[in-house]
Amino acid sequence: MSTSKNVSGVRALTFDVFGTVVDWRSSIIREMSALGRSKGIEADWERFADAWRGGYAPAMNMVRTGELPWTSIDSLHRMVLDRLLIEFGIEGLSESEKDYINRAWHRLLPWPDSIAGIERIRKRFIAATLSNGNVSLLVNMAKHAGINWDCILSSELAGHYKPDREVYLTAAALLGLEPENVMMVAAHTDDLISAGSLGFKTAFVRRPLEFGPSGKAEDGRGMPFDVVAEDFLDLADKLGA
Amino acid sequence: MSTSKNVSGVRALTFDVFGTVVDWRSSIIREMSALGRSKGIEADWERFADAWRGGYAPAMNMVRTGELPWTSIDSLHRMVLDRLLIEFGIEGLSESEKDYINRAWHRLLPWPDSIAGIERIRKRFIAATLSNGNVSLLVNMAKHAGINWDCILSSELAGHYKPDREVYLTAAALLGLEPENVMMVAAHTDDLISAGSLGFKTAFVRRPLEFGPSGKAEDGRGMPFDVVAEDFLDLADKLGA
Repeated sequence: MSTSKNVSGVRALTFDVFGTVVDWRSSIIREMSALGRSKGIEADWERFADAWRGGYAPAMNMVRTGELPWTSIDSLHRMVLDRLLIEFGIEGLSESEKDYINRAWHRLLPWPDSIAGIERIRKRFIAATLSNGNVSLLVNMAKHAGINWDCILSSELAGHYKPDREVYLTAAALLGLEPENVMMVAAHTDDLISAGSLGFKTAFVRRPLEFGPSGKAEDGRGMPFDVVAEDFLDLADKLGA
Repeated sequence: MSTSKNVSGVRALTFDVFGTVVDWRSSIIREMSALGRSKGIEADWERFADAWRGGYAPAMNMVRTGELPWTSIDSLHRMVLDRLLIEFGIEGLSESEKDYINRAWHRLLPWPDSIAGIERIRKRFIAATLSNGNVSLLVNMAKHAGINWDCILSSELAGHYKPDREVYLTAAALLGLEPENVMMVAAHTDDLISAGSLGFKTAFVRRPLEFGPSGKAEDGRGMPFDVVAEDFLDLADKLGA
């Protein structure tokens, strides 16, 4: 256990959430499988989960490019869900059932190390979300999963989606800190590259199962990140927390 | 212990902070007295604290009326502090000492029942701040005092100060809730009247010592609030939490 050199001056950590803190894929598969059992619907729920997540970036990019006005992740998830229900031939769901399914993203469960790691990190640093998820999604998720954050920060507060620079700069400003006093934590290179280009410190956390056992997750090798960690406990070790 | 009738449907409580959650007056007096002892400065620190807090509403109203552009509470506190240092004849402070004093508002301590009451309330409801304090002030205060919130909401996120309606409506929207599903908690009538006029439920909490032993605090009597509580433990009782 050796503390990384490049963390001096860090006062706050901002965490990407989907894939970094929570295991969206297993959570969505579990929720959809349970729905399927209760409604007598059979489908390839792994493919459904991957398609739902896969539809998110294109929908978000329509907001980023101005093709859509500001639209919350809840609404983007619902747009994709409505399309997938047709594509997968899933019928007979009521509006309240669809709304309940869409809120599966409010009920995603953390990776096994997330809660313990965040608790350790919070003893020494401010720990905040910085997610494309809307504030209410993040609040409900934390409540449901039992995660304690010091602050819920979201792209929603900037009216821009990551990796747009406004998201990171708004987060640092709301925390009253300069970018170099904030460390972005993510399992995704694009998020960290954007934050790092604005002066944030960067911590890559490996989540090899984010896209499932046969999916391809990034491993952060060869990238200029300040910290690369195996999980949040390793991150806490490397931060001396 | 009887649960109040008017709390059905409430999912989240939003708390005023200065005076309601924390005892700003004792905290400021304690911080200024300590500074005075260490710097050999004598002054009437009770009067200083009251004058500092007293300068806040007029300064904030300059923002509310458009006389000043959006200015954070940190900056408004500093404007008032600089004036008071002159009025009280306090000299010889460095910039970093003045900045440290100004951040006394980030280090305010809770009333004795606040932390235990919020913990009980959080088991059944979302508990968020809704303060005119800026986000970083509220994050630092919670961290310093050991208060766990589900979400830090602030006037800063609306670009308006309470009791402007935008503050309450922004808070409900960020929580993904209708106003009637949110209860505003405050020791101040104007805050609750404004929130209530927009459909929020209202809880008045008595803080008889907010303005000191000889100060005049409101008692909430004769007002149409959904709940009137003696402290946060009584509030938790009345909410069935």
